[in-house]
Amino acid sequence: MGQIGGSLDAFIGAVHRRAATFDNEIELVCGVFSQSPEKSKATGKALYLPDNRVYESFEEMILREKELPEGERMDFVSIVTPNHMHFPPAKMALENGFHVICDKPMTLNLEEAKELVKVVEQTGLVFGLTHNYTGYPMIKEAREIVRSGKLGKIRKVVVEYPQGWLSKYEEGNNYKQAIWRTDPTKSGAAGCMGDIGTHAENLAEYVTGLKIDELCADLSTFVPGRLLDDDGNVLLRFEGGAKGVLHASQISNGEENALKIYVYGELGGLEWHQMEPNTLHYKSQEGHRLLRPAVGDLSAAAKAHGRMPSGHPEGFFEAFANIYRNFAFAVKAHMNGQQPDPLYDFPSVYDGVRGLAFIDTVLASSSSNEKWTKFIE
Amino acid sequence: MGQIGGSLDAFIGAVHRRAATFDNEIELVCGVFSQSPEKSKATGKALYLPDNRVYESFEEMILREKELPEGERMDFVSIVTPNHMHFPPAKMALENGFHVICDKPMTLNLEEAKELVKVVEQTGLVFGLTHNYTGYPMIKEAREIVRSGKLGKIRKVVVEYPQGWLSKYEEGNNYKQAIWRTDPTKSGAAGCMGDIGTHAENLAEYVTGLKIDELCADLSTFVPGRLLDDDGNVLLRFEGGAKGVLHASQISNGEENALKIYVYGELGGLEWHQMEPNTLHYKSQEGHRLLRPAVGDLSAAAKAHGRMPSGHPEGFFEAFANIYRNFAFAVKAHMNGQQPDPLYDFPSVYDGVRGLAFIDTVLASSSSNEKWTKFIE
Amino acid sequence: MGQIGGSLDAFIGAVHRRAATFDNEIELVCGVFSQSPEKSKATGKALYLPDNRVYESFEEMILREKELPEGERMDFVSIVTPNHMHFPPAKMALENGFHVICDKPMTLNLEEAKELVKVVEQTGLVFGLTHNYTGYPMIKEAREIVRSGKLGKIRKVVVEYPQGWLSKYEEGNNYKQAIWRTDPTKSGAAGCMGDIGTHAENLAEYVTGLKIDELCADLSTFVPGRLLDDDGNVLLRFEGGAKGVLHASQISNGEENALKIYVYGELGGLEWHQMEPNTLHYKSQEGHRLLRPAVGDLSAAAKAHGRMPSGHPEGFFEAFANIYRNFAFAVKAHMNGQQPDPLYDFPSVYDGVRGLAFIDTVLASSSSNEKWTKFIE
Amino acid sequence: MGQIGGSLDAFIGAVHRRAATFDNEIELVCGVFSQSPEKSKATGKALYLPDNRVYESFEEMILREKELPEGERMDFVSIVTPNHMHFPPAKMALENGFHVICDKPMTLNLEEAKELVKVVEQTGLVFGLTHNYTGYPMIKEAREIVRSGKLGKIRKVVVEYPQGWLSKYEEGNNYKQAIWRTDPTKSGAAGCMGDIGTHAENLAEYVTGLKIDELCADLSTFVPGRLLDDDGNVLLRFEGGAKGVLHASQISNGEENALKIYVYGELGGLEWHQMEPNTLHYKSQEGHRLLRPAVGDLSAAAKAHGRMPSGHPEGFFEAFANIYRNFAFAVKAHMNGQQPDPLYDFPSVYDGVRGLAFIDTVLASSSSNEKWTKFIE
Repeated sequence: MGQIGGSLDAFIGAVHRRAATFDNEIELVCGVFSQSPEKSKATGKALYLPDNRVYESFEEMILREKELPEGERMDFVSIVTPNHMHFPPAKMALENGFHVICDKPMTLNLEEAKELVKVVEQTGLVFGLTHNYTGYPMIKEAREIVRSGKLGKIRKVVVEYPQGWLSKYEEGNNYKQAIWRTDPTKSGAAGCMGDIGTHAENLAEYVTGLKIDELCADLSTFVPGRLLDDDGNVLLRFEGGAKGVLHASQISNGEENALKIYVYGELGGLEWHQMEPNTLHYKSQEGHRLLRPAVGDLSAAAKAHGRMPSGHPEGFFEAFANIYRNFAFAVKAHMNGQQPDPLYDFPSVYDGVRGLAFIDTVLASSSSNEKWTKFIE
Repeated sequence: MGQIGGSLDAFIGAVHRRAATFDNEIELVCGVFSQSPEKSKATGKALYLPDNRVYESFEEMILREKELPEGERMDFVSIVTPNHMHFPPAKMALENGFHVICDKPMTLNLEEAKELVKVVEQTGLVFGLTHNYTGYPMIKEAREIVRSGKLGKIRKVVVEYPQGWLSKYEEGNNYKQAIWRTDPTKSGAAGCMGDIGTHAENLAEYVTGLKIDELCADLSTFVPGRLLDDDGNVLLRFEGGAKGVLHASQISNGEENALKIYVYGELGGLEWHQMEPNTLHYKSQEGHRLLRPAVGDLSAAAKAHGRMPSGHPEGFFEAFANIYRNFAFAVKAHMNGQQPDPLYDFPSVYDGVRGLAFIDTVLASSSSNEKWTKFIE
Repeated sequence: MGQIGGSLDAFIGAVHRRAATFDNEIELVCGVFSQSPEKSKATGKALYLPDNRVYESFEEMILREKELPEGERMDFVSIVTPNHMHFPPAKMALENGFHVICDKPMTLNLEEAKELVKVVEQTGLVFGLTHNYTGYPMIKEAREIVRSGKLGKIRKVVVEYPQGWLSKYEEGNNYKQAIWRTDPTKSGAAGCMGDIGTHAENLAEYVTGLKIDELCADLSTFVPGRLLDDDGNVLLRFEGGAKGVLHASQISNGEENALKIYVYGELGGLEWHQMEPNTLHYKSQEGHRLLRPAVGDLSAAAKAHGRMPSGHPEGFFEAFANIYRNFAFAVKAHMNGQQPDPLYDFPSVYDGVRGLAFIDTVLASSSSNEKWTKFIE
Repeated sequence: MGQIGGSLDAFIGAVHRRAATFDNEIELVCGVFSQSPEKSKATGKALYLPDNRVYESFEEMILREKELPEGERMDFVSIVTPNHMHFPPAKMALENGFHVICDKPMTLNLEEAKELVKVVEQTGLVFGLTHNYTGYPMIKEAREIVRSGKLGKIRKVVVEYPQGWLSKYEEGNNYKQAIWRTDPTKSGAAGCMGDIGTHAENLAEYVTGLKIDELCADLSTFVPGRLLDDDGNVLLRFEGGAKGVLHASQISNGEENALKIYVYGELGGLEWHQMEPNTLHYKSQEGHRLLRPAVGDLSAAAKAHGRMPSGHPEGFFEAFANIYRNFAFAVKAHMNGQQPDPLYDFPSVYDGVRGLAFIDTVLASSSSNEKWTKFIE
């Protein structure tokens, strides 16, 4: 794996590295960790990379690695830069024969996302997107319960993603995470809705298998001086008739990272909280069960995404690592000319397009007087 | 107290009686418990009432009680009938000099509600409405925290009220509670939104002190054959700029009575769940506190609505009893020509009007293509 | 009902009154509420009792009430005084033909307890003891699950009762509740172990149906100047081979009233917390279920002790009221010459003896160098 | 790092590997993973080790690695075999100049443990013990709160470790984890008490800084045919006067891995559950706070053991990795002739001795009729 972005002072880059190497399927062999060559070198050194595998630009990395003999060169690139720097390296890597795994939202805008689909399809290479919350074992279980029909037809979906860390004007406090996320040139046209709203949208569609058909959004910017939305409330209508609510916020003061989803069908309901990820509530009018990793009769999918006996809590890194491991399995399968095992799934370039389309749709809806805005295709 | 409605097989009538007598401030002295004279008599007998204080109609009760000497006759009427039978007895009781406490929603429609305001204002008598969830000590505390300014300006409010008990066509199962609540002639123009949506609306406005200014609603009827909405999702905009979400449902399969409210301000947030009513979460980016009755330094309002040392859970009845007790205090004050003590507050006829206006507004919005519908005055 | 003890400034007296009248089966008709005639009168007045039914001593009350015609006089006495004043009125009331319900521990010492058994047996009257925690619906369910054999043979029982309210020398702060509970002449030979340890002992034996056979206790007095134990840890051995732990404390700083019980059998386990009394955890290696009042298929016993639809939390008062209601049913049955319905059970004089024997056993054990002390019969 | 034990079908070996490499401070360079050379080779291959670094015995590994040039050879060994195979490789490794990190309990018996102390002291090398639960950030915070004096003098400690996975005779089911843990020749003289009781003992002493002075134990073997204890209840007395309870079980049917600790002092109390490790309850009679990683003003120790922003749950692996990282820091410091930074602490050989002494003490106590048994030195 060659990494693009993720210098020592970045947050998500280190998460990706830990996730990538967690299951001993992936090794970091090269990288360009920063636009600053000094920072990049320092990071490479701290990661025990040889100097000649730490590059000054992603273009250099892709071209130079390509020249290395197979088996020695990186097998894929991992892109962990701010959003505006996703598309260029992803496209170039794919076009030079490298598989790609990329942070979300996939690109700066929908146009890039659609072009990336074409590149992926043309090259036939493996593309993964780190909507990491889908990697939790209990989310796999939730999805399988819906698929099994145990809930009957889905009627209602509520997905919430409140955070509070941007309750103040943190972008004025020299706070790196805040600065780029609230800068339209780096983050894209949406703030909160792009950063975490897309996670909520992806999770809802992943668990239910339903696609949002139309929506009605009310986005807000509460903190004076902020350039992008920091809160949004959305009514959802899904294909097939289910209704729902999605709300996400970075000004919900006191909330940490409280992604939750509730799914209700004719016969039962599910509830899951990211901050207590090892419990899936499975309820019906007849009773309330707590489903837990490695307890009782879980689906093959849930079992395939846990590593521990019951009661040994796995968390954020492990779920993230599941995405990387499954991506690695797909890369291996590709190398061996095999089909990937659907048990080991991960978000795709098409999920990435949905995410960018979601952003465009909520923005369009929020500035419209029409009640319903069709989900942009 | 004379009760109208609440025969032995009714649910809420018995709740009202227990709530009314819980603090030894109120005695049941007469009633008309059913449209069936036999049922009414049987109920009266079971309640140890003398036969001559069990009446055949509310008209009879009001007129006959009025003839009794002061001190012997009932002081007020408690109305616990289905919604269509709230207004007629309330009006007649007031016009004959009796104070009134009434279940919610206050009337069958907004027109009746507005007329009731006039009657209350003209008679100067005490009118109470049993939005019972405002009676919990930790809701009093929440309201005081908002009032104190500790949260700063309120930015976002989320209020949810999912139930699952109408997931099937229960009105076809000879299920009394389901039958009248889904019958427009008895329940009014809304189902779920009238029955529990109004509780959510009332709670949000009560805790925050903010009024909903406009909203965007999507109501649904999921169960085939049902005549009224059984689910609704609503975007809220409050006067002063706060935004919010309200959703209520009676088809959220597996949910019991899961009213929750979240309030976020510039400086902190609150979270409360009706099913664990003795914990108020008070969070900010600096920490997370659990506020509990009789622990630490609570507001006078919270203290005035709890009866027990810490860790002795009070629940639904006790909160309901707080409404009755406070109403009784106001009736006493009226009798003594005094002003009621604002510490012992309870929902008023104006809250009742808000509830009916909320119903009309969500219905209008739900059938409109306009995004925003002004809260009907 | 005639009440002995429970003046306006007492805590538990008002709890008893509310519990007694909650289900409209019991009416307070007379009382002697304090040793001070003024206090007693003031309390009677506040409770709307006629002056001539408020007495100056329990002896007077018993004798004068006895002279009243049947149907007018009290049917039973409720004793809510400090422990040293339980036995004398209980004995006299029974000997004069009145049924008795009494707070716990039943008497000041084991000798009195055993004598009370004789009086109850000789008079054939109804005697109830307010180990109120056995009145919770989910405790009834727990007991029924054990009885049903679903857990298999019971192997381990853990019961804990931590409180923190005596972490300081509150008896020096003119704090009435603290003063008598830490005074051996009023409370008996044990402090914490008598006040709440007996609740824990009773709950463990009630839920499991097992009797403690021997135990090993370590009692402590942590607060300087205190005359009785304020903490105790006990190893338990039950008849039939189950083992267990009981610990109770009034110096567990920060704890409210955190009675919990865990029961483990060959096939599954149960867990219940008094502070969230409406959830019973039923676990096995196959899964974890949350049992809740009015949800799904509960035992007849659980159903008979709840009053509300699901999700409407009942609490401490309602559980207490169940004890009184069941006692009232037994009194009614006695009056009608019938056997009481075992579905409506309540703690008996024999439970009271167990409680006093438990106190004597833990005291003996705590001062012994022998490891095991047989439960005193 | 060279690993001893941990073939592919082992559980804890893989945990150690993930923990060791998690922070990119440690690399697996060699190993002997099984007594079976085939298994060992297969494991080495799966871990991408070169064939010549996969050995057939720990003796071979230690001697051959020693011959490699510094910088190339392993820096330390990680011992993850069953208990009877801890001491021999630990001693030999240390005596050949390699630092050692070892699973718990440290040795098969106290005699070996004491000898190991001597070897560590004589060699001056770094020795770590994986009492992994002390690696959680919130446990670091708990310890710092106690140290700070905020709780005042500690009065009571309750530590519980219930599991249910040995509720049946699993050692007869060809269940590898069960077989060796219930075999005295591999596990040592204690079963449950050695496997998890020592974790509880270590955690209690770590958090409080207090040493157990004497105890009273009641160990049981509930499952017929089992050779070692599967449950134990223990009264504790600490130096300085604190009292406590420790109970551990592997037959608490339905429990996963429910290690909990409660600490009460004169001024406040703490509560922590391993299965929700990111919440530390900090209570006093004035209030209840939830302390969470990366929220508010935590101790330097807590901050040094978390990697993520708030609300991104870290779990078992991350706590385990903290032990390895801190051990690696100490190894580095040793290499550089520096003192280790006490902020990055980890369990030592002396903790290991305490663990074995605890096992011997509870065994002696359990078979004694004396109430109190002094903690064996």
